[in-house]
Amino acid sequence: MLTDALNLYTQMPILAIDYCPCCGNRTRLHVPEGDNRERAICQACDTIHYQNPKIVAGVLPVWQDKVLLCKRAIEPRYGTWTLPAGFMENGESVEQGAKRETWEEAEADVMNLSIYTMLSIPRISQVYIIFRADLTGPEAFGVGTESLETALFAEHEIPWDDIAFPMIERSLRYYFKDREHGKFGVYIEDM
Amino acid sequence: MLTDALNLYTQMPILAIDYCPCCGNRTRLHVPEGDNRERAICQACDTIHYQNPKIVAGVLPVWQDKVLLCKRAIEPRYGTWTLPAGFMENGESVEQGAKRETWEEAEADVMNLSIYTMLSIPRISQVYIIFRADLTGPEAFGVGTESLETALFAEHEIPWDDIAFPMIERSLRYYFKDREHGKFGVYIEDM
Repeated sequence: MLTDALNLYTQMPILAIDYCPCCGNRTRLHVPEGDNRERAICQACDTIHYQNPKIVAGVLPVWQDKVLLCKRAIEPRYGTWTLPAGFMENGESVEQGAKRETWEEAEADVMNLSIYTMLSIPRISQVYIIFRADLTGPEAFGVGTESLETALFAEHEIPWDDIAFPMIERSLRYYFKDREHGKFGVYIEDM
Repeated sequence: MLTDALNLYTQMPILAIDYCPCCGNRTRLHVPEGDNRERAICQACDTIHYQNPKIVAGVLPVWQDKVLLCKRAIEPRYGTWTLPAGFMENGESVEQGAKRETWEEAEADVMNLSIYTMLSIPRISQVYIIFRADLTGPEAFGVGTESLETALFAEHEIPWDDIAFPMIERSLRYYFKDREHGKFGVYIEDM
């Protein structure tokens, strides 16, 4: 079940902390004083190791009536289409992470970022944060190393049956619906 | 410098992964194939260990013209005032995390959550996500174990000199300014 979810959602499993990352001794699961849930605690140095959800930051890049998609050159979901998005790194902001991923996957320059969807997926402890943004030109993109190809799609051209992840499909569906009404919301949901 | 930042911003330092959490052997810092930054990689089992930013989820709870604040009973910033907020846990959504923290710190029931500020703090690799929300009643709160006291404050009563964290102060300032104009934005910023 988790494996299925991982295939559909992520390449990064949640690893157990069986040994202390600080000193290498065994941990045990225990509820620390003042806490209310089990943590991995080192039996030698007493360090408490917390595990927390990860942010996937991405962009929905727009040029006129088209959206830029990337065909994945990596697992999971090799060969399917996605928006540029990936795990946010330490030392950057959410926007910086989204822009970096857009560059890495599509060599695309984007501007006017506006938060659009924030989708929590509790069972895999991830939060997708997708910004709407404008491409800086009709050719302001290339093909990053994690992509087989990239292309602009009008709504009727979107390969709905080959979208990599449900969070990406949902963001795209909201986008085209909102655009029809000429008014863009901010969508905070669980999946 | 990092210590100063930690005092002002968080109780959770970023620990180095010197030993593999999976098998306890030494790691080394190395850029994995296809990656572009150093990761801790186990020298025995080759597992790559990623470290990513953490989300602090919180609520700005409102009752009529007042906002609920909590006086901290824990370090850092013991004795200063804050909005209920804390580290999001695995297995929950951002909203669930914000509501849980609001219960734990203020025993408060809130409804009508609406995303309000998302503040990235790259130098400590945290993202604050604060929701506006309504208290369910004028007495729908108590004092959680992490608080010395809790109270409703009108704008002129806010203890601005004793607010625990800059992200909390900024969210409160936006709130009172927006309320004056009767229109609430969504603020995505770096700090």
